[in-house]
Amino acid sequence: MPDKLPTQFYTTIDEFVLESGEIIFDATVAFIIKGRLDILRSNVVVICHALSGSADFEDWWSLLFSGNEKAALDPERFCIICCNCLGSPYGSSSPVSSKPGDGTAFYGPSFPKTTIRDDVRIQKYVLDQLGVRSIHSVIGASMGGMLALEWSLFGEDYVRSLVLIATTARQGPWAIAWAENQRATIKADAKYREGFYTDDPPVAGLGAARMSAMLSYRTHKSFDKRFGRRRLLARSVEDVRPGDNVNPCTSMSLEGMSLSGHRSNKQPTFAVQSYLRYQAEKFNERFDTNCYIHLLDKIDSHDIIRGRYENLSDGDAMEAVLRQIQQPALVVGIPTDGLYPLSEQLALAKGLPNATFYALESEDGHDGFLLEGKKLNCILKPFFN
Amino acid sequence: MPDKLPTQFYTTIDEFVLESGEIIFDATVAFIIKGRLDILRSNVVVICHALSGSADFEDWWSLLFSGNEKAALDPERFCIICCNCLGSPYGSSSPVSSKPGDGTAFYGPSFPKTTIRDDVRIQKYVLDQLGVRSIHSVIGASMGGMLALEWSLFGEDYVRSLVLIATTARQGPWAIAWAENQRATIKADAKYREGFYTDDPPVAGLGAARMSAMLSYRTHKSFDKRFGRRRLLARSVEDVRPGDNVNPCTSMSLEGMSLSGHRSNKQPTFAVQSYLRYQAEKFNERFDTNCYIHLLDKIDSHDIIRGRYENLSDGDAMEAVLRQIQQPALVVGIPTDGLYPLSEQLALAKGLPNATFYALESEDGHDGFLLEGKKLNCILKPFFN
Repeated sequence: MPDKLPTQFYTTIDEFVLESGEIIFDATVAFIIKGRLDILRSNVVVICHALSGSADFEDWWSLLFSGNEKAALDPERFCIICCNCLGSPYGSSSPVSSKPGDGTAFYGPSFPKTTIRDDVRIQKYVLDQLGVRSIHSVIGASMGGMLALEWSLFGEDYVRSLVLIATTARQGPWAIAWAENQRATIKADAKYREGFYTDDPPVAGLGAARMSAMLSYRTHKSFDKRFGRRRLLARSVEDVRPGDNVNPCTSMSLEGMSLSGHRSNKQPTFAVQSYLRYQAEKFNERFDTNCYIHLLDKIDSHDIIRGRYENLSDGDAMEAVLRQIQQPALVVGIPTDGLYPLSEQLALAKGLPNATFYALESEDGHDGFLLEGKKLNCILKPFFN
Repeated sequence: MPDKLPTQFYTTIDEFVLESGEIIFDATVAFIIKGRLDILRSNVVVICHALSGSADFEDWWSLLFSGNEKAALDPERFCIICCNCLGSPYGSSSPVSSKPGDGTAFYGPSFPKTTIRDDVRIQKYVLDQLGVRSIHSVIGASMGGMLALEWSLFGEDYVRSLVLIATTARQGPWAIAWAENQRATIKADAKYREGFYTDDPPVAGLGAARMSAMLSYRTHKSFDKRFGRRRLLARSVEDVRPGDNVNPCTSMSLEGMSLSGHRSNKQPTFAVQSYLRYQAEKFNERFDTNCYIHLLDKIDSHDIIRGRYENLSDGDAMEAVLRQIQQPALVVGIPTDGLYPLSEQLALAKGLPNATFYALESEDGHDGFLLEGKKLNCILKPFFN
């Protein structure tokens, strides 16, 4: 589905039994490795990507891996591995994969639902195949942090430390509500056809859902600074395309555009509208709708107490599960995060017996984990030294 | 469009010229009056409703008008008037009105765009018709606050005080982004047909847009308390209908429903999903999509510096306009408001020469202006005494 998959490795499992009991035949995991396994096969850092990410961690987290001495994750020292999650369109088995034994047909909406635990289990299989004996650290932000938490439950002999960024111990009703809004938005587009679209995907629905996601990832303050009430006039905003002399992603974006006076009452397009439409379009170029819904459902299923300590109350079960995670943990929260607010990371830091908490200052909200790579690198560096 | 319009008065203007230059013929304003004009015709309190509200202020703000001595707005003392805004489906001219001279045809998407200033101008006409000489106070929350601000610019001889709640001096890029997401969501529904739907309106699109609006009106904390990860199992959530023994609006809503164990991994529906779907359905029963888009466009046009002090910079123009508003002003902000955050009301309170600021404590965010009627009444009472 994405225009171009990253250069990556693939491995396939004949039959992978999901937590639900369903089986994915010829289950494929795409992954990327940077650095070499050391002689003890224990210098591995596992990176877990977020919902719309790929295994290509250098693409979206370049500042942490620049390979110089200032980067927190030095590929001279660590063997860095990132696996693409099941259901993602970036190479692992997903709704856009061919159904084994069915010629060229894709799974589409018949791709079985998967959980964060399924991902962790199949990714551990990949590491086993590679001969990895133990993991120096597992690190993830947002959905990636959900994976990192589940990874840590393999125990401290196998996973020796963890880094959890802008994430949560269980998907709460607020994040579920955002996911539900986005699912409903996609389903409002008749082209969705319950997932059985083919050459005519629901771009309007997925685009509008992406706009909603952007609102959950950003903040009032960052939009205020970036866009104000600036407008585009001279040509229709629908004309703004990537590659134009306009990059609607930055506050410099409107240079070269014909800007109206700020206070006209014509019906122009606000810069922020243009930005959102551009984001919607870009997302349609790189993502598949069935995959998106699959991943929304996956994060909604995330709950580290699911099926654990069932004789205890939710609160006590949460305490008990977090107490199991004895490894040194770095918990990072973004004070402006509107999707997984700081309270969720503070609860993690409080419940994990051996955790340090850091606030990653950002005006951008949840997306700060991507946009503040430099600051994040500074927070991570001492932890990895 | 709504099942039932409130009992209200109507007045009609042959030709109402809009700010845009377009004309609404037979322009109708629906309004409700409670209390009597005193002998000086100056005991009027004008209430301005929010985006999805009606003139029926006792319906949505009952606690401020209960008519006993504890209510801030005593109809024994004040003549309380609320006019329905242009473009709203609750009785004033709007996309669901018949087009004059066109038999039974509705305006639909051809209804001309209106601004907050158009509303204030036509509402003043209504007050003139009623013989009102001056206004004791004008009060509004959210979009209503935008009207109240514009009302105040008629000057202190006519409007003697104002109350601005959870509102802003100009619609900023954050609120525009929410509106844009909701417009895009509606347009993703092919039934929208650029507004030319008739018997088959885009209920899926409008419903999903309402879900997005609910996210802008509420908070992480309130959803956490209300819903947690509780689920519905026994029957499909699509079966939950108003009038069932279930009211998904309250945290008690799920009593009587078959709740699953909290930690099952079946594919049940979370209580919060059910709540959002119920909100979507309820909204479709009471609102029209063209009206909704009209009102979103209207709030996007709100900017008290538009066309004023055009020789000054935005910042200086804002200072100058606010400085004109010499009346005693009460500015109320909700610290958890995610749509028009406190910074916007603090800016108002700072810029208005004669303003007092109050924080309305609420866990519910923007909707606190509706949900915290009791607290709001306590804040307003001294101001009206």
